[in-house]
Amino acid sequence: MNAVTVVPIQGVPEIRPGADIGWEVARAMRECGLALVGGDIVVIKSKIVSKAERRLVFAKDIEPSAFAVSAAALTGREPRYMELVLRESVRIVRMGPGVIISETKHGFVLANAGVDGSNTGAGVYALLPESPDASAANIRERLFDAFGVYAGVIISDTFGRPWREGQCDLAIGICGIAPLSDETGTKDAYGNVLRYTKAAVADELAGAAELVCGKTENVPAALIRGYEFEARESAIDEVIMPMERDLFR
Amino acid sequence: MNAVTVVPIQGVPEIRPGADIGWEVARAMRECGLALVGGDIVVIKSKIVSKAERRLVFAKDIEPSAFAVSAAALTGREPRYMELVLRESVRIVRMGPGVIISETKHGFVLANAGVDGSNTGAGVYALLPESPDASAANIRERLFDAFGVYAGVIISDTFGRPWREGQCDLAIGICGIAPLSDETGTKDAYGNVLRYTKAAVADELAGAAELVCGKTENVPAALIRGYEFEARESAIDEVIMPMERDLFR
Repeated sequence: MNAVTVVPIQGVPEIRPGADIGWEVARAMRECGLALVGGDIVVIKSKIVSKAERRLVFAKDIEPSAFAVSAAALTGREPRYMELVLRESVRIVRMGPGVIISETKHGFVLANAGVDGSNTGAGVYALLPESPDASAANIRERLFDAFGVYAGVIISDTFGRPWREGQCDLAIGICGIAPLSDETGTKDAYGNVLRYTKAAVADELAGAAELVCGKTENVPAALIRGYEFEARESAIDEVIMPMERDLFR
Repeated sequence: MNAVTVVPIQGVPEIRPGADIGWEVARAMRECGLALVGGDIVVIKSKIVSKAERRLVFAKDIEPSAFAVSAAALTGREPRYMELVLRESVRIVRMGPGVIISETKHGFVLANAGVDGSNTGAGVYALLPESPDASAANIRERLFDAFGVYAGVIISDTFGRPWREGQCDLAIGICGIAPLSDETGTKDAYGNVLRYTKAAVADELAGAAELVCGKTENVPAALIRGYEFEARESAIDEVIMPMERDLFR
Protein backbone atom coordinates (compact mmCIF):
# COMPACT_ATOMS: atom_id res chain seq x y z
CA MET A 1 0.00 0.00 0.00
CA ASN A 2 1.14 3.51 -0.78
CA ALA A 3 0.60 6.77 1.03
CA VAL A 4 -2.62 8.54 0.10
CA THR A 5 -2.76 12.32 -0.13
CA VAL A 6 -5.92 14.38 0.18
CA VAL A 7 -5.63 17.88 -1.26
CA PRO A 8 -8.27 20.61 -0.89
CA ILE A 9 -9.24 22.20 -4.20
CA GLN A 10 -9.31 25.85 -3.23
CA GLY A 11 -10.70 28.70 -5.29
CA VAL A 12 -13.82 27.12 -6.75
CA PRO A 13 -16.04 30.19 -7.21
CA GLU A 14 -19.61 30.54 -5.97
CA ILE A 15 -21.55 28.13 -8.18
CA ARG A 16 -24.55 29.59 -10.02
CA PRO A 17 -27.44 27.71 -11.60
CA GLY A 18 -26.31 26.28 -14.92
CA ALA A 19 -22.61 26.40 -14.06
CA ASP A 20 -20.35 23.68 -15.42
CA ILE A 21 -18.94 22.08 -12.29
CA GLY A 22 -16.30 19.98 -14.02
CA TRP A 23 -14.97 23.03 -15.80
CA GLU A 24 -14.99 25.15 -12.62
CA VAL A 25 -13.17 22.46 -10.66
CA ALA A 26 -10.60 21.99 -13.43
CA ARG A 27 -9.97 25.74 -13.51
CA ALA A 28 -9.58 25.91 -9.73
CA MET A 29 -7.20 22.95 -9.83
CA ARG A 30 -5.04 24.66 -12.44
CA GLU A 31 -4.95 27.83 -10.32
CA CYS A 32 -3.77 25.71 -7.36
CA GLY A 33 -1.07 24.23 -9.57
CA LEU A 34 -2.79 20.84 -9.61
CA ALA A 35 -3.14 18.63 -12.69
CA LEU A 36 -4.90 15.26 -12.79
CA VAL A 37 -2.73 12.19 -13.12
CA GLY A 38 -3.78 8.60 -13.71
CA GLY A 39 -5.33 7.02 -10.62
CA ASP A 40 -6.54 10.31 -9.14
CA ILE A 41 -9.92 10.64 -7.49
CA VAL A 42 -11.93 13.86 -7.30
CA VAL A 43 -14.54 14.22 -4.57
CA ILE A 44 -17.15 16.96 -4.98
CA LYS A 45 -19.68 18.06 -2.39
CA SER A 46 -23.25 17.62 -3.54
CA LYS A 47 -24.23 21.16 -2.59
CA ILE A 48 -22.41 22.75 -5.54
CA VAL A 49 -23.78 20.07 -7.86
CA SER A 50 -27.32 20.85 -6.66
CA LYS A 51 -26.73 24.53 -7.32
CA ALA A 52 -25.36 23.97 -10.81
CA GLU A 53 -28.24 21.62 -11.63
CA ARG A 54 -30.86 24.13 -10.44
CA ARG A 55 -31.99 21.86 -7.57
CA LEU A 56 -32.83 24.92 -5.48
CA VAL A 57 -36.26 25.75 -4.11
CA PHE A 58 -37.54 28.97 -2.58
CA ALA A 59 -39.39 28.15 0.61
CA LYS A 60 -41.99 30.83 -0.13
CA ASP A 61 -43.08 28.94 -3.26
CA ILE A 62 -44.01 25.82 -1.28
CA GLU A 63 -47.53 24.99 -0.12
CA PRO A 64 -47.30 22.60 2.82
CA SER A 65 -49.67 19.64 2.86
CA ALA A 66 -51.68 18.70 5.94
CA PHE A 67 -49.15 15.99 6.80
CA ALA A 68 -46.25 18.42 6.40
CA VAL A 69 -47.95 20.65 8.98
CA SER A 70 -48.31 17.68 11.35
CA ALA A 71 -44.72 16.65 10.77
CA ALA A 72 -43.58 20.20 11.47
CA ALA A 73 -45.39 20.15 14.81
CA LEU A 74 -43.75 16.85 15.72
CA THR A 75 -40.22 17.70 14.57
CA GLY A 76 -40.20 21.40 15.39
CA ARG A 77 -39.19 22.33 11.83
CA GLU A 78 -40.84 24.66 9.32
CA PRO A 79 -43.94 23.26 7.55
CA ARG A 80 -42.59 24.28 4.14
CA TYR A 81 -39.30 22.57 4.88
CA MET A 82 -41.14 19.42 5.93
CA GLU A 83 -43.14 19.56 2.70
CA LEU A 84 -39.93 19.60 0.67
CA VAL A 85 -38.54 16.70 2.71
CA LEU A 86 -41.71 14.69 2.10
CA ARG A 87 -41.64 15.41 -1.64
CA GLU A 88 -38.10 14.04 -1.82
CA SER A 89 -38.98 10.93 0.20
CA VAL A 90 -40.47 7.56 -0.71
CA ARG A 91 -40.51 6.09 2.81
CA ILE A 92 -40.32 7.51 6.31
CA VAL A 93 -38.08 5.45 8.58
CA ARG A 94 -38.22 7.53 11.79
CA MET A 95 -39.49 10.90 12.98
CA GLY A 96 -38.01 12.72 15.94
CA PRO A 97 -37.00 16.13 17.25
CA GLY A 98 -35.67 18.20 14.35
CA VAL A 99 -35.63 15.37 11.90
CA ILE A 100 -37.41 12.99 9.58
CA ILE A 101 -35.16 10.05 8.68
CA SER A 102 -36.40 9.00 5.29
CA GLU A 103 -35.53 7.07 2.20
CA THR A 104 -35.08 9.22 -0.89
CA LYS A 105 -36.03 8.38 -4.45
CA HIS A 106 -32.39 7.33 -4.95
CA GLY A 107 -32.65 4.81 -2.08
CA PHE A 108 -30.49 6.75 0.39
CA VAL A 109 -31.67 6.83 3.98
CA LEU A 110 -30.73 10.07 5.67
CA ALA A 111 -31.92 13.00 7.72
CA ASN A 112 -34.53 15.18 6.07
CA ALA A 113 -34.01 13.51 2.69
CA GLY A 114 -30.85 15.55 2.23
CA VAL A 115 -32.84 18.78 1.84
CA ASP A 116 -30.56 21.44 3.24
CA GLY A 117 -30.60 25.15 3.85
CA SER A 118 -26.93 25.63 4.70
CA ASN A 119 -24.61 27.33 2.22
CA THR A 120 -27.60 28.62 0.28
CA GLY A 121 -29.24 32.05 0.27
CA ALA A 122 -31.88 32.98 2.85
CA GLY A 123 -35.10 31.04 2.34
CA VAL A 124 -33.53 28.76 -0.26
CA TYR A 125 -33.19 25.01 0.13
CA ALA A 126 -31.00 22.71 -1.93
CA LEU A 127 -32.31 19.27 -2.90
CA LEU A 128 -29.95 16.40 -3.66
CA PRO A 129 -29.01 16.04 -7.33
CA GLU A 130 -31.60 13.99 -9.21
CA SER A 131 -29.09 11.53 -10.62
CA PRO A 132 -25.78 11.88 -8.79
CA ASP A 133 -24.10 9.14 -10.85
CA ALA A 134 -24.91 11.10 -14.01
CA SER A 135 -23.56 14.25 -12.35
CA ALA A 136 -20.34 12.39 -11.54
CA ALA A 137 -20.10 11.10 -15.12
CA ASN A 138 -20.48 14.61 -16.54
CA ILE A 139 -17.80 15.97 -14.23
CA ARG A 140 -15.51 13.09 -15.14
CA GLU A 141 -15.87 13.91 -18.85
CA ARG A 142 -15.16 17.59 -18.29
CA LEU A 143 -12.10 16.79 -16.21
CA PHE A 144 -10.94 14.50 -19.02
CA ASP A 145 -11.39 17.36 -21.50
CA ALA A 146 -9.25 19.56 -19.26
CA PHE A 147 -6.48 17.14 -18.30
CA GLY A 148 -6.65 14.19 -20.73
CA VAL A 149 -6.99 11.76 -17.81
CA TYR A 150 -10.00 9.93 -16.47
CA ALA A 151 -10.36 10.32 -12.71
CA GLY A 152 -12.57 8.40 -10.34
CA VAL A 153 -15.30 10.87 -9.38
CA ILE A 154 -17.35 10.83 -6.18
CA ILE A 155 -20.21 13.16 -5.25
CA SER A 156 -20.47 13.36 -1.46
CA ASP A 157 -23.09 14.43 1.04
CA THR A 158 -23.20 14.64 4.83
CA PHE A 159 -24.94 11.84 6.76
CA GLY A 160 -25.77 11.45 10.42
CA ARG A 161 -25.55 7.95 11.86
CA PRO A 162 -27.68 5.89 14.22
CA TRP A 163 -26.09 5.35 17.63
CA ARG A 164 -23.23 7.80 17.11
CA GLU A 165 -22.94 11.54 17.44
CA GLY A 166 -21.68 13.55 14.54
CA GLN A 167 -21.82 13.22 10.81
CA CYS A 168 -19.63 11.74 8.12
CA ASP A 169 -19.53 12.53 4.43
CA LEU A 170 -20.54 9.54 2.32
CA ALA A 171 -20.75 8.93 -1.42
CA ILE A 172 -24.06 9.64 -3.15
CA GLY A 173 -22.81 9.43 -6.74
CA ILE A 174 -19.83 7.80 -8.40
CA CYS A 175 -18.25 7.26 -11.77
CA GLY A 176 -15.28 5.15 -12.78
CA ILE A 177 -14.56 3.73 -9.34
CA ALA A 178 -15.88 0.65 -7.56
CA PRO A 179 -17.60 1.84 -4.35
CA LEU A 180 -16.84 -1.35 -2.42
CA SER A 181 -13.65 -3.36 -2.13
CA ASP A 182 -15.04 -6.87 -1.77
CA GLU A 183 -12.70 -9.28 -0.01
CA THR A 184 -15.41 -11.75 1.01
CA GLY A 185 -14.09 -15.26 0.48
CA THR A 186 -10.41 -14.29 0.35
CA LYS A 187 -8.03 -15.48 3.05
CA ASP A 188 -6.44 -13.40 5.78
CA ALA A 189 -2.84 -13.81 6.96
CA TYR A 190 -3.92 -16.79 9.10
CA GLY A 191 -5.67 -18.59 6.27
CA ASN A 192 -9.14 -17.83 7.64
CA VAL A 193 -11.66 -17.32 4.84
CA LEU A 194 -13.14 -13.85 5.32
CA ARG A 195 -16.91 -13.61 5.80
CA TYR A 196 -18.81 -10.56 4.50
CA THR A 197 -15.89 -8.15 4.09
CA LYS A 198 -16.61 -5.25 1.81
CA ALA A 199 -14.76 -2.07 2.61
CA ALA A 200 -16.97 0.88 1.70
CA VAL A 201 -14.08 2.67 0.06
CA ALA A 202 -16.13 5.33 -1.75
CA ASP A 203 -17.59 6.33 1.61
CA GLU A 204 -14.17 6.33 3.28
CA LEU A 205 -12.81 8.45 0.44
CA ALA A 206 -15.74 10.89 0.81
CA GLY A 207 -15.01 11.13 4.53
CA ALA A 208 -11.30 11.69 3.90
CA ALA A 209 -12.19 14.52 1.52
CA GLU A 210 -14.40 16.12 4.16
CA LEU A 211 -11.35 16.40 6.43
CA VAL A 212 -9.86 18.99 4.04
CA CYS A 213 -13.13 20.63 2.95
CA GLY A 214 -14.86 21.42 6.23
CA LYS A 215 -18.35 22.83 6.53
CA THR A 216 -17.89 26.59 6.71
CA GLU A 217 -14.89 27.11 4.42
CA ASN A 218 -15.52 27.54 0.76
CA VAL A 219 -13.74 24.33 -0.27
CA PRO A 220 -16.29 22.14 -2.08
CA ALA A 221 -13.91 19.63 -3.64
CA ALA A 222 -10.80 17.59 -2.96
CA LEU A 223 -8.27 15.64 -4.95
CA ILE A 224 -7.18 12.23 -3.62
CA ARG A 225 -3.95 10.80 -4.96
CA GLY A 226 -2.24 7.49 -4.33
CA TYR A 227 -5.25 5.33 -3.51
CA GLU A 228 -5.28 2.19 -5.65
CA PHE A 229 -8.91 1.67 -6.59
CA GLU A 230 -10.75 -0.64 -8.91
CA ALA A 231 -11.40 1.53 -11.98
CA ARG A 232 -14.57 0.35 -13.71
CA GLU A 233 -18.11 1.34 -14.60
CA SER A 234 -19.99 1.67 -11.36
CA ALA A 235 -23.18 2.94 -9.79
CA ILE A 236 -24.03 4.13 -6.30
CA ASP A 237 -26.84 1.54 -6.26
CA GLU A 238 -24.12 -0.99 -5.40
CA VAL A 239 -23.91 0.62 -1.96
CA ILE A 240 -27.64 0.60 -1.24
CA MET A 241 -28.57 -2.36 0.92
CA PRO A 242 -31.40 -4.39 -0.61
CA MET A 243 -34.62 -4.14 1.37
CA GLU A 244 -34.72 -7.89 2.08
CA ARG A 245 -31.38 -7.76 3.91
CA ASP A 246 -32.01 -4.47 5.69
CA LEU A 247 -32.70 -4.79 9.42
CA PHE A 248 -33.46 -1.08 9.93
CA ARG A 249 -35.84 0.06 7.20
CA MET B 1 -6.90 23.84 4.85
CA ASN B 2 -3.76 21.89 4.11
CA ALA B 3 -3.24 18.63 2.31
CA VAL B 4 -3.57 15.57 4.51
CA THR B 5 -1.34 12.54 3.99
CA VAL B 6 -2.17 9.02 5.14
CA VAL B 7 0.85 6.74 5.37
CA PRO B 8 0.66 2.98 6.04
CA ILE B 9 2.92 1.86 8.88
CA GLN B 10 4.43 -1.27 7.39
CA GLY B 11 6.44 -3.88 9.21
CA VAL B 12 4.58 -4.12 12.50
CA PRO B 13 5.32 -7.72 13.52
CA GLU B 14 2.73 -10.31 14.52
CA ILE B 15 1.49 -9.06 17.89
CA ARG B 16 1.65 -11.55 20.75
CA PRO B 17 -0.21 -11.40 24.07
CA GLY B 18 1.54 -8.91 26.33
CA ALA B 19 3.28 -7.07 23.49
CA ASP B 20 3.79 -3.33 23.84
CA ILE B 21 1.89 -1.92 20.88
CA GLY B 22 3.21 1.63 21.17
CA TRP B 23 6.76 0.35 21.17
CA GLU B 24 6.14 -2.01 18.23
CA VAL B 25 4.51 0.74 16.18
CA ALA B 26 7.32 3.18 16.98
CA ARG B 27 9.91 0.61 15.91
CA ALA B 28 8.05 -0.12 12.66
CA MET B 29 7.79 3.63 11.99
CA ARG B 30 11.52 4.04 12.44
CA GLU B 31 12.17 1.16 10.07
CA CYS B 32 9.93 2.87 7.48
CA GLY B 33 11.93 6.08 7.98
CA LEU B 34 9.01 7.77 9.71
CA ALA B 35 9.28 9.96 12.81
CA LEU B 36 6.40 11.63 14.61
CA VAL B 37 6.09 15.39 14.26
CA GLY B 38 3.73 17.74 16.09
CA GLY B 39 0.16 17.46 14.86
CA ASP B 40 0.50 13.85 13.70
CA ILE B 41 -2.23 11.30 14.28
CA VAL B 42 -1.63 7.56 14.61
CA VAL B 43 -4.53 5.20 13.89
CA ILE B 44 -4.23 1.63 15.14
CA LYS B 45 -6.55 -1.26 14.33
CA SER B 46 -8.21 -2.70 17.39
CA LYS B 47 -7.29 -6.27 16.46
CA ILE B 48 -3.63 -5.87 17.42
CA VAL B 49 -4.62 -4.04 20.61
CA SER B 50 -6.91 -6.94 21.53
CA LYS B 51 -4.08 -9.39 20.93
CA ALA B 52 -1.60 -7.41 23.02
CA GLU B 53 -4.16 -7.04 25.81
CA ARG B 54 -4.91 -10.77 25.86
CA ARG B 55 -8.50 -10.26 24.73
CA LEU B 56 -8.45 -13.59 22.91
CA VAL B 57 -10.74 -16.50 23.63
CA PHE B 58 -10.53 -20.10 22.49
CA ALA B 59 -13.91 -21.21 21.20
CA LYS B 60 -13.44 -24.67 22.71
CA ASP B 61 -13.36 -23.15 26.23
CA ILE B 62 -16.83 -21.63 25.86
CA GLU B 63 -20.02 -23.26 27.14
CA PRO B 64 -22.96 -21.82 25.20
CA SER B 65 -26.07 -20.86 27.14
CA ALA B 66 -29.54 -21.91 26.08
CA PHE B 67 -30.14 -18.50 24.50
CA ALA B 68 -26.82 -18.67 22.64
CA VAL B 69 -28.01 -21.96 21.11
CA SER B 70 -31.30 -20.32 20.06
CA ALA B 71 -29.46 -17.31 18.67
CA ALA B 72 -27.14 -19.60 16.72
CA ALA B 73 -30.15 -21.33 15.14
CA LEU B 74 -31.62 -17.96 14.16
CA THR B 75 -28.43 -16.36 12.86
CA GLY B 76 -26.75 -19.44 11.42
CA ARG B 77 -23.60 -18.84 13.45
CA GLU B 78 -21.78 -21.12 15.91
CA PRO B 79 -23.37 -21.40 19.40
CA ARG B 80 -20.01 -20.72 21.09
CA TYR B 81 -19.53 -17.63 18.97
CA MET B 82 -23.02 -16.42 19.86
CA GLU B 83 -22.23 -17.00 23.52
CA LEU B 84 -19.17 -14.76 23.28
CA VAL B 85 -21.21 -12.11 21.48
CA LEU B 86 -23.85 -12.21 24.22
CA ARG B 87 -21.25 -11.96 26.97
CA GLU B 88 -19.87 -8.80 25.35
CA SER B 89 -23.33 -7.26 24.92
CA VAL B 90 -25.61 -5.27 27.20
CA ARG B 91 -28.52 -4.88 24.77
CA ILE B 92 -29.59 -6.62 21.59
CA VAL B 93 -30.80 -4.19 18.93
CA ARG B 94 -31.53 -6.59 16.05
CA MET B 95 -30.99 -10.22 15.13
CA GLY B 96 -30.82 -11.44 11.55
CA PRO B 97 -29.03 -13.83 9.24
CA GLY B 98 -25.38 -14.09 10.30
CA VAL B 99 -25.58 -11.31 12.82
CA ILE B 100 -26.63 -9.96 16.17
CA ILE B 101 -26.52 -6.16 16.21
CA SER B 102 -25.88 -5.33 19.82
CA GLU B 103 -24.71 -2.64 22.16
CA THR B 104 -21.43 -3.43 23.88
CA LYS B 105 -20.43 -2.57 27.41
CA HIS B 106 -18.63 0.46 25.94
CA GLY B 107 -21.86 1.71 24.34
CA PHE B 108 -20.92 0.89 20.74
CA VAL B 109 -23.64 -0.62 18.58
CA LEU B 110 -22.19 -2.99 16.03
CA ALA B 111 -22.38 -6.42 14.48
CA ASN B 112 -21.68 -9.30 16.84
CA ALA B 113 -20.41 -6.96 19.55
CA GLY B 114 -17.14 -6.66 17.66
CA VAL B 115 -16.20 -10.28 18.45
CA ASP B 116 -14.17 -11.37 15.46
CA GLY B 117 -12.40 -14.48 14.22
CA SER B 118 -10.48 -12.93 11.33
CA ASN B 119 -6.73 -12.39 11.61
CA THR B 120 -6.60 -14.72 14.60
CA GLY B 121 -5.57 -18.37 14.82
CA ALA B 122 -8.05 -21.16 14.10
CA GLY B 123 -10.75 -21.39 16.78
CA VAL B 124 -9.66 -18.12 18.40
CA TYR B 125 -11.84 -15.04 18.68
CA ALA B 126 -10.72 -11.53 19.53
CA LEU B 127 -12.88 -9.36 21.77
CA LEU B 128 -12.74 -5.57 21.61
CA PRO B 129 -10.28 -3.96 24.06
CA GLU B 130 -11.89 -3.45 27.44
CA SER B 131 -11.03 0.23 27.64
CA PRO B 132 -9.96 1.48 24.22
CA ASP B 133 -9.37 5.03 25.45
CA ALA B 134 -6.89 3.69 27.99
CA SER B 135 -5.26 1.62 25.24
CA ALA B 136 -4.92 4.78 23.15
CA ALA B 137 -3.46 6.69 26.10
CA ASN B 138 -0.85 3.98 26.69
CA ILE B 139 0.15 3.97 23.05
CA ARG B 140 0.37 7.76 23.06
CA GLU B 141 2.76 7.68 26.02
CA ARG B 142 4.97 5.06 24.39
CA LEU B 143 5.07 7.03 21.14
CA PHE B 144 6.04 10.09 23.18
CA ASP B 145 8.85 8.09 24.78
CA ALA B 146 10.07 7.10 21.33
CA PHE B 147 9.74 10.41 19.49
CA GLY B 148 9.33 13.14 22.12
CA VAL B 149 6.08 14.27 20.52
CA TYR B 150 2.49 13.70 21.58
CA ALA B 151 0.35 12.39 18.73
CA GLY B 152 -3.41 12.13 18.53
CA VAL B 153 -4.12 8.42 18.84
CA ILE B 154 -7.18 6.61 17.49
CA ILE B 155 -8.02 2.91 17.92
CA SER B 156 -10.25 1.81 15.04
CA ASP B 157 -12.59 -1.06 14.36
CA THR B 158 -14.72 -2.09 11.39
CA PHE B 159 -18.45 -1.30 11.45
CA GLY B 160 -21.26 -2.20 9.10
CA ARG B 161 -23.98 0.36 8.59
CA PRO B 162 -27.77 0.27 8.40
CA TRP B 163 -29.10 0.89 4.88
CA ARG B 164 -25.75 0.71 3.13
CA GLU B 165 -23.60 -2.15 1.92
CA GLY B 166 -20.04 -2.40 3.07
CA GLN B 167 -18.17 -1.44 6.17
CA CYS B 168 -16.21 1.56 7.33
CA ASP B 169 -13.57 1.77 10.02
CA LEU B 170 -14.66 4.00 12.90
CA ALA B 171 -12.97 5.15 16.10
CA ILE B 172 -13.50 3.05 19.24
CA GLY B 173 -10.82 4.68 21.40
CA ILE B 174 -9.08 8.04 21.32
CA CYS B 175 -6.53 10.06 23.18
CA GLY B 176 -5.44 13.66 22.72
CA ILE B 177 -7.82 14.47 19.87
CA ALA B 178 -11.38 15.76 19.87
CA PRO B 179 -13.54 13.18 18.09
CA LEU B 180 -16.06 15.71 16.80
CA SER B 181 -15.53 19.08 15.14
CA ASP B 182 -18.56 20.98 16.40
CA GLU B 183 -19.59 23.86 14.16
CA THR B 184 -23.16 24.04 15.45
CA GLY B 185 -24.12 27.69 15.82
CA THR B 186 -21.35 29.06 13.60
CA LYS B 187 -22.21 30.80 10.35
CA ASP B 188 -21.68 29.49 6.85
CA ALA B 189 -20.48 31.65 3.93
CA TYR B 190 -24.07 32.95 3.49
CA GLY B 191 -24.49 33.94 7.12
CA ASN B 192 -26.86 31.06 7.89
CA VAL B 193 -26.41 29.79 11.42
CA LEU B 194 -25.56 26.09 11.16
CA ARG B 195 -27.87 23.65 12.92
CA TYR B 196 -26.48 20.39 14.40
CA THR B 197 -23.18 20.27 12.53
CA LYS B 198 -20.59 18.04 14.12
CA ALA B 199 -18.15 16.44 11.76
CA ALA B 200 -17.21 13.03 13.14
CA VAL B 201 -13.57 13.62 12.39
CA ALA B 202 -12.18 10.72 14.44
CA ASP B 203 -14.37 8.37 12.42
CA GLU B 204 -13.38 10.00 9.13
CA LEU B 205 -9.72 9.69 10.15
CA ALA B 206 -10.23 6.01 11.04
CA GLY B 207 -11.82 5.45 7.63
CA ALA B 208 -8.98 7.27 5.87
CA ALA B 209 -6.49 5.03 7.67
CA GLU B 210 -8.37 1.93 6.52
CA LEU B 211 -7.73 2.98 2.92
CA VAL B 212 -4.02 2.31 3.41
CA CYS B 213 -4.35 -0.65 5.81
CA GLY B 214 -6.77 -2.95 4.02
CA LYS B 215 -8.14 -6.16 5.48
CA THR B 216 -5.82 -8.91 4.31
CA GLU B 217 -2.48 -7.10 4.31
CA ASN B 218 -0.50 -7.02 7.48
CA VAL B 219 -0.73 -3.25 7.94
CA PRO B 220 -2.42 -2.59 11.28
CA ALA B 221 -1.59 1.09 11.66
CA ALA B 222 -1.35 4.34 9.75
CA LEU B 223 0.14 7.77 10.29
CA ILE B 224 -1.95 10.79 9.31
CA ARG B 225 -0.13 14.06 8.81
CA GLY B 226 -1.41 17.54 8.03
CA TYR B 227 -4.86 17.35 9.57
CA GLU B 228 -5.47 20.24 11.92
CA PHE B 229 -7.32 18.77 14.86
CA GLU B 230 -8.38 20.03 18.24
CA ALA B 231 -5.75 18.58 20.58
CA ARG B 232 -7.25 18.06 24.02
CA GLU B 233 -8.22 15.45 26.56
CA SER B 234 -11.00 13.41 25.03
CA ALA B 235 -13.02 10.25 25.37
CA ILE B 236 -14.83 8.07 22.86
CA ASP B 237 -17.99 8.51 24.96
CA GLU B 238 -18.36 11.89 23.27
CA VAL B 239 -19.29 10.01 20.09
CA ILE B 240 -21.87 7.73 21.67
CA MET B 241 -25.37 9.08 21.14
CA PRO B 242 -27.28 9.36 24.38
CA MET B 243 -30.15 6.90 24.63
CA GLU B 244 -32.77 9.65 24.91
CA ARG B 245 -31.81 11.08 21.52
CA ASP B 246 -31.32 7.76 19.79
CA LEU B 247 -34.04 6.83 17.31
CA PHE B 248 -32.65 3.36 16.56
CA ARG B 249 -31.82 1.66 19.86
